[in-house]
Amino acid sequence: MGSIIKQLAILGSTGSIGQQTLEIVRTLSHRFHIVGLAAGQNTDLLAKQIAEFKPRFVYHQNKEALALITNEEYQILSLEDIASHPQIDTVVIACSGASGLSPTLAAVKAGKTVALANKESLVMAGEIIASEARLKSAQILPIDSEHSAIWQCLIGEKQKVAQLILTASGGPFRHYSPAQMNEVTVEQALKHPSWQMGKKVTIDSATMMNKGLEVIEAHWLFAMPFDSIRVLVHPQSIVHSMVEFIDGSIKAQLGYPDMRLPIQYALTYPDRLSNPRLPKLDWANINSLTFEQPDFDKFPCLKLAIEAGKKGGTCPAVLCAADEVAVELFLAGRVKFTDIPHLVEQALERHQVIAHPALEDILKADKWARQEVSQLVSEKNL
Amino acid sequence: MGSIIKQLAILGSTGSIGQQTLEIVRTLSHRFHIVGLAAGQNTDLLAKQIAEFKPRFVYHQNKEALALITNEEYQILSLEDIASHPQIDTVVIACSGASGLSPTLAAVKAGKTVALANKESLVMAGEIIASEARLKSAQILPIDSEHSAIWQCLIGEKQKVAQLILTASGGPFRHYSPAQMNEVTVEQALKHPSWQMGKKVTIDSATMMNKGLEVIEAHWLFAMPFDSIRVLVHPQSIVHSMVEFIDGSIKAQLGYPDMRLPIQYALTYPDRLSNPRLPKLDWANINSLTFEQPDFDKFPCLKLAIEAGKKGGTCPAVLCAADEVAVELFLAGRVKFTDIPHLVEQALERHQVIAHPALEDILKADKWARQEVSQLVSEKNL
Repeated sequence: MGSIIKQLAILGSTGSIGQQTLEIVRTLSHRFHIVGLAAGQNTDLLAKQIAEFKPRFVYHQNKEALALITNEEYQILSLEDIASHPQIDTVVIACSGASGLSPTLAAVKAGKTVALANKESLVMAGEIIASEARLKSAQILPIDSEHSAIWQCLIGEKQKVAQLILTASGGPFRHYSPAQMNEVTVEQALKHPSWQMGKKVTIDSATMMNKGLEVIEAHWLFAMPFDSIRVLVHPQSIVHSMVEFIDGSIKAQLGYPDMRLPIQYALTYPDRLSNPRLPKLDWANINSLTFEQPDFDKFPCLKLAIEAGKKGGTCPAVLCAADEVAVELFLAGRVKFTDIPHLVEQALERHQVIAHPALEDILKADKWARQEVSQLVSEKNL
Repeated sequence: MGSIIKQLAILGSTGSIGQQTLEIVRTLSHRFHIVGLAAGQNTDLLAKQIAEFKPRFVYHQNKEALALITNEEYQILSLEDIASHPQIDTVVIACSGASGLSPTLAAVKAGKTVALANKESLVMAGEIIASEARLKSAQILPIDSEHSAIWQCLIGEKQKVAQLILTASGGPFRHYSPAQMNEVTVEQALKHPSWQMGKKVTIDSATMMNKGLEVIEAHWLFAMPFDSIRVLVHPQSIVHSMVEFIDGSIKAQLGYPDMRLPIQYALTYPDRLSNPRLPKLDWANINSLTFEQPDFDKFPCLKLAIEAGKKGGTCPAVLCAADEVAVELFLAGRVKFTDIPHLVEQALERHQVIAHPALEDILKADKWARQEVSQLVSEKNL
């Protein structure tokens, strides 16, 4: 494996994960070749990335704007065409939100190795993606500190697992009273105590929706029943997650909260590479690792997500879409922090669930939930 | 593998590890058959074990005494003959001290799977045992919570290891002043804060000699250089040890401080079995895991052991033997707790090291060190 250069496409290259992926590629440039880059919004940064990495294929939401500021030669393709292109081995799905679903499915159907940072695709369409991946022998490698930790703990022994223990920082409002939760500002919610991440996932961490989505993702990634996946609050974010085996032995994966390690591992797997830019845990500065049970009453999003996962069908798609719109509305100052779970809950309550949905059903549920939340807010019917 | 009954010999069956091994065998009786039992001193208990497990081969230091109190049929063999007998698959070496060396070597030479709880054999003769194990394809499986943890963390990825992190409870005297250390009583030293163990290993834990021996053992078990093995004090004894890989990712194995889990894992490997009698970690009761750097000045035995390991040759054998006698003298009230490192240090200083020793050289060094320490004490030349 050592000498083969992997041909990469990075979908969502201008986001937080996309930029960190390119940082890894820069450092380990003898191992990777960037064949495709795709971004939704940040035209200037995408132009810089194109100049540096000279990808053959490019996607941008606004291709005319991009053409105006780049001199490089490249071919414009859709996200799905890049994800499934024969010249690409590994597709990094770093798009945010529901936009990750379609390229993920395209990559899986083309039998690619998918390094998956996008939660929503598996949450919305886990059943379809997992079954296509089996059919086409496509590997889905998680880029998420929690799922990467579980994956690493399962190496060499995927059998005899009793439960997965997903750790959660608990976010910035772990010790807030209900009254304080009611008054949370956008600025407060964007200050995550241990992780530097994009805005959507930072808010999802503050509501713990993020952890709920991760439970659903873990269910599909590791084929574990929901009752064998638990959440444990660990504010220092050093233990990234754990696996308990049937004999009671627990394996954990540890490191600083830094996405570059799980990104690199997904890119170099099954190898591990030394990278001087990755931080090494300094035990002289780690005094205490603490653990608490999650508070499902204070963080209703966590409960809503796990319930939606258990119900299955189109419920997780509705959960995702409703949350995405609710978070946007919160960031825009249109709803309160505590309205996020209310909006998601109401969307889920009003939704007519379809069991074992086809992709169209999922996309329809997604669209329905977005409209529903917008309408709920415009009616002030929170 | 599932249906094959393993044929076991347990050498040291009346000690703490031996008794816990038999408890596992009792619970998982469909998986194991006891073919050999051996004990040094506890005649009554050995007689009971013989009546219960009806082994074909038995060893006892005082065979006449044993014959007087048992009616069972068995054949008396030497420890080495049991360890290498063709009817036995797996030999559990649970003898304490230097007495484990010869049967371990016999088992390894016979190509047996060796479940090794005895530290001294690898510490004294690691080079010989490791090379014989390679030659005869004998597997050495650690029964020690720390080495079992490292072994479990290495499953599926033995390459690309940066360092082994051996955790240590730090013993009962972690916060003692030098003056307090000087006045430690036998009773205090036998009260370990987290582990229930035999007397010798409990005292070795209090001096941290035990952790030093484990560093040497890890060096041989996992073929790691001494500079890539570090000790980290972790008073709760929940994280049993860790492995850091070259990319900075750390894997840890966790569980309650209970020897039955590593014993069972060594017996059932590569399988894991559910055992309702093994405790499951209850995260509701685990608030905080703490870590500290070891204090080499307060615990000179730790430093002496690592230095002896690095020097190699006959040094570790002298370290082991000197410590064994010094601990006996301390338990007998003949020397002080703080005399233990002094005696070991003096023996090491006076010893003429032989590099790459043969077994006879090691046994000679062992004998010499025992005499030397006894003489040092009788001369009161501490």
